[in-house]
Amino acid sequence: MGGVTTDDRACKDRGPGDRVPKQDRSRATRQRLLAAAVACLAERGWAGSTVSVVAERAGVSRGAAQHHFPTREDLFTAAVEYVAEERSDALRALFPQGAQGDRRAVVTALVGLYTGPLFRAALHLWVAASNEEQLRPRVTELEARVGRESHRIAVELLGADESAPGVRETVQGLLDMARGLGLANLLTDDAGRRERVVAQWAGLLDETLGRPAAD
Amino acid sequence: MGGVTTDDRACKDRGPGDRVPKQDRSRATRQRLLAAAVACLAERGWAGSTVSVVAERAGVSRGAAQHHFPTREDLFTAAVEYVAEERSDALRALFPQGAQGDRRAVVTALVGLYTGPLFRAALHLWVAASNEEQLRPRVTELEARVGRESHRIAVELLGADESAPGVRETVQGLLDMARGLGLANLLTDDAGRRERVVAQWAGLLDETLGRPAAD
Repeated sequence: MGGVTTDDRACKDRGPGDRVPKQDRSRATRQRLLAAAVACLAERGWAGSTVSVVAERAGVSRGAAQHHFPTREDLFTAAVEYVAEERSDALRALFPQGAQGDRRAVVTALVGLYTGPLFRAALHLWVAASNEEQLRPRVTELEARVGRESHRIAVELLGADESAPGVRETVQGLLDMARGLGLANLLTDDAGRRERVVAQWAGLLDETLGRPAAD
Repeated sequence: MGGVTTDDRACKDRGPGDRVPKQDRSRATRQRLLAAAVACLAERGWAGSTVSVVAERAGVSRGAAQHHFPTREDLFTAAVEYVAEERSDALRALFPQGAQGDRRAVVTALVGLYTGPLFRAALHLWVAASNEEQLRPRVTELEARVGRESHRIAVELLGADESAPGVRETVQGLLDMARGLGLANLLTDDAGRRERVVAQWAGLLDETLGRPAAD
């Protein structure tokens, strides 16, 4: 989508030399913009999130920001995607040896995906996309991609055997619940109630899924 | 909150006479404004929803709209509350003799609460409230009230015995899942997947809750 960015060029093989620091700077600028975009979206919503506001927050000129992200839609969908990837990596890193059958810990970690600033940012983006034709197809596609990845991680960490009937829907329902718990946390700190719901449903899930599938 | 509205006055006992049609007209105007406000919020989001836009849609003058609802916040919180009440009534009316133990039908109906225009409208309001200080306390309070009422209906229709340990959290988790399923339906028609998740989780819920509590 869109033209070749500095980062695309930076991905191609080049010989060593004085271009490397410039590529590093470009990548660092890009990541600063992405992080600032997510924070801005979480705090101000879509209406308050423009390329200029993000550029200022990231300490980058507006021109440089537009070089990386030609449109507002480019910037914010890239930002949500980037942070979703970081979040998936962090989740896997929590269980470097797999979850060892501790499903309550896994459910807690999965639900945690939906209660931080990334979820807030993604929620603003999704809700804006439901009314903005320019944003909608990109966010729909992004949501599907992020959803598939969350499902993959959940199946893996829960040790769920999706060849058994109903298991796929059980895991999907769990992620729907996690999303709903995230929404319930939007206006108030819902941590106490959430913890009790997670404890109860982790128990139900454990009975339903049986022993974790072998790795 | 706010001054006495025409409707408050209309609630007081009065003798019969030529004022009645005026009171009826006033109530009808109020309801047209509330319905238009929910539709507007669902279609255009908070940013596109003003008292003027709603008044025009309802075929009411701006002055008349402001007579009923002095501020934008008054209008939209009243609208979401009004439709939430109508929705609760409609849900109870679906099961005039109680749910007769058909938990799948109940879960389907509960999840249905979160997939229509009211949920879209409420979602826009909640998301806007997370960034707008003027809106936030009112919506937080409204959300708590609507949430308690949904919980009460769910317990009643599911025949759940909340004196048993874990039952309260089981029902809460189900409503969180319903909310998450609503969110998943925001950008795409998710009906097929939703139906499979509902079938699976209604079965799990049935095992967990045991026989419905006696009425």
